[in-house]
Amino acid sequence: MTGNMLVAHGGGPTPVINCSLRGAVEEAKKHGEINGIYGARFGAVGILGGDLLDLGGVSETEIAKLSDTPASALGSCRRKLSEADYPRVLECFEKHKIRYFFYNGGNDSMDTCHQINQLALEAGYELRIIGIPKTIDNDLAETDHSPGFGSAARYAAISALELAMDAAALPIHVVVMEMMGRNAGWITAAAALFSGLMPCEHLVYLPERPLEKRRFLEDVSAAWDKKRGVLVTVSEGIKDPEGRPYGDTGIRDGFGHAIPGGTAQVLSDLIITELKLKSRSEKPGLLGRVSMAHRSPVDQAEAYEAGAFAVRSAVEGKSGFMVALETSRAPEYLSRMNLVPLERVANVEKTFPGAWINPEGNGVLNGFADYCFPLIGPGAPQYACLEREIVSRSFL
Amino acid sequence: MTGNMLVAHGGGPTPVINCSLRGAVEEAKKHGEINGIYGARFGAVGILGGDLLDLGGVSETEIAKLSDTPASALGSCRRKLSEADYPRVLECFEKHKIRYFFYNGGNDSMDTCHQINQLALEAGYELRIIGIPKTIDNDLAETDHSPGFGSAARYAAISALELAMDAAALPIHVVVMEMMGRNAGWITAAAALFSGLMPCEHLVYLPERPLEKRRFLEDVSAAWDKKRGVLVTVSEGIKDPEGRPYGDTGIRDGFGHAIPGGTAQVLSDLIITELKLKSRSEKPGLLGRVSMAHRSPVDQAEAYEAGAFAVRSAVEGKSGFMVALETSRAPEYLSRMNLVPLERVANVEKTFPGAWINPEGNGVLNGFADYCFPLIGPGAPQYACLEREIVSRSFL
Repeated sequence: MTGNMLVAHGGGPTPVINCSLRGAVEEAKKHGEINGIYGARFGAVGILGGDLLDLGGVSETEIAKLSDTPASALGSCRRKLSEADYPRVLECFEKHKIRYFFYNGGNDSMDTCHQINQLALEAGYELRIIGIPKTIDNDLAETDHSPGFGSAARYAAISALELAMDAAALPIHVVVMEMMGRNAGWITAAAALFSGLMPCEHLVYLPERPLEKRRFLEDVSAAWDKKRGVLVTVSEGIKDPEGRPYGDTGIRDGFGHAIPGGTAQVLSDLIITELKLKSRSEKPGLLGRVSMAHRSPVDQAEAYEAGAFAVRSAVEGKSGFMVALETSRAPEYLSRMNLVPLERVANVEKTFPGAWINPEGNGVLNGFADYCFPLIGPGAPQYACLEREIVSRSFL
Repeated sequence: MTGNMLVAHGGGPTPVINCSLRGAVEEAKKHGEINGIYGARFGAVGILGGDLLDLGGVSETEIAKLSDTPASALGSCRRKLSEADYPRVLECFEKHKIRYFFYNGGNDSMDTCHQINQLALEAGYELRIIGIPKTIDNDLAETDHSPGFGSAARYAAISALELAMDAAALPIHVVVMEMMGRNAGWITAAAALFSGLMPCEHLVYLPERPLEKRRFLEDVSAAWDKKRGVLVTVSEGIKDPEGRPYGDTGIRDGFGHAIPGGTAQVLSDLIITELKLKSRSEKPGLLGRVSMAHRSPVDQAEAYEAGAFAVRSAVEGKSGFMVALETSRAPEYLSRMNLVPLERVANVEKTFPGAWINPEGNGVLNGFADYCFPLIGPGAPQYACLEREIVSRSFL
């Protein structure tokens, strides 16, 4: 089937979403079935408004730069399509002769893909539709992991190690770091990957476990007594046993939804007031999904291949699927692309496995390290350790 | 004069403080006058407790790794020496035959250096003492800039550009980023270096200008109306016209000092409640002084040379000075090391020049860019820009 193709982004960017875009565009140029190559500006908003970019007209040099471009080069949105929107989507596709549609997003976007696919089938409109997975949160089902996660995990692992080095070098306070991932603790857990190399204690709290305030303070106090300088990594979505987010500011938006604030700040303030220890909080937030310096090369390559594989699959006649990653980790890490039906991933949220959380609920077990290390690329840097020979201690 | 040498770190680490340590150690090995090479564990605390590391016994390979090691490899402290401490310092020096002392720190540390130097002179104890400048805040007087600042500035510039790309790609909110530098706006100003490349509006507020709440909200509102997606960069130390820090949590530590909280969070909450816009805040905090991925190569080289130059100067008989950087910026950037008397830098704080702040107090002028660009190393990455040819707009 010949026709034009359209790529759109949905939800938050990842450090490698533009790699998938590059993969899709470069693959499309190899196939005579695909004529025009379009990108929707700001995802669903661009589709509904007919705001498309002609990517076929963009130079190869510019397309190649996508690999190192942060955020979403097309623009994205959080607008969820409603029943009323779907006919306008098909209208846009018809007008621009779109026969291949690739939606690069998370579980919300896969639901959108699924709906559009159903609609096209009902309307008898010939369309091949493939979802390209993307989320730093790693909460997509039916895939070993999602493109975007490896880089976010690398950011978390290296940032935590660096902060731990700082906390141990100037051991005057507890440092509390907040990581993204409101409901799924994958990124927060990745902060523990280099815990074994840290010169201070490291406590890690995932949103999958309610956190009791008293227990938290006991953990921090015990860690402080063990070794001055403590790093605490928490998910932005940590809740107390009653289900109340620690980061709830009390502020409500126009829809009455709670506006989340600084979870790490709240916990750090608790450490100060209740334990009388100095404490400070760091919240790199969006930097964890946009930092180019911390990308995982494995993640970049897989994101590219996911985009290219989506196009190849559609040209071969597949439709109604999401690209998924199948992996083997021994004797060495290998991944290959696969397809899973959209309805199996739409709106499903894959949270962090309880089996990988330690019994105390303040750390991560080795099974996770085996799973995650291959995804973040090169291992820990080799830092200097000067403590070889101590001349004397307790001189006075 | 032959004798042993001691290096100590004071105050917060920088991304390149270990480069200066490497420079000092490697230079010392070239001079027969220097026998033992020691490092104080945790700065003044190590000197008072006689907790020294024999750096001469550490392998060359390990010393070389210092260039890429975050935080302070020796350990540092915030303990300010008191009158009562000084005799114990000399006692430590005598016991370990320290004749060369290098203190790598900021203006507090230079005051300490100055005091120790005076004391040694009075006591007739032969000592050569040189301060090695170090601060991400760039607030040391009598030097063009301080080792550490170039890397912190690079972190700020790149992080701001990346966040701006994110804010423009998913333009659903205002993003408020907080930068370190409580009294001096140098790092915050560096976040503006790539403002010209940002696809969204960028407002920058330094601690040198009081910030009126109403004016702040008007600025943000006007920026939002101009282009969806706004980045606001604020110093952690921003105060209102009455001198009250926006980040004051109301929490006091044991000494009654205010515990600073999340300035960016407070301002972001204001945007939500007063302007009814979505907003979120990011506070990378200590990550800006410890991130290895964002170091400036210029800064690394200068930090190394500052350490080496301090040792050379002391061997040549100099004492009572701080290493300072002299620079020329045209036709190309060049820097060279120099010495300034300690008393001229002790306890002096160099804030951001008013002449480089725009009249509106929400941005930085080009004079600063000319000053700062050479310090951060390689320029902005070349990002892809796909907006070449728009097929159609407002289709429906």
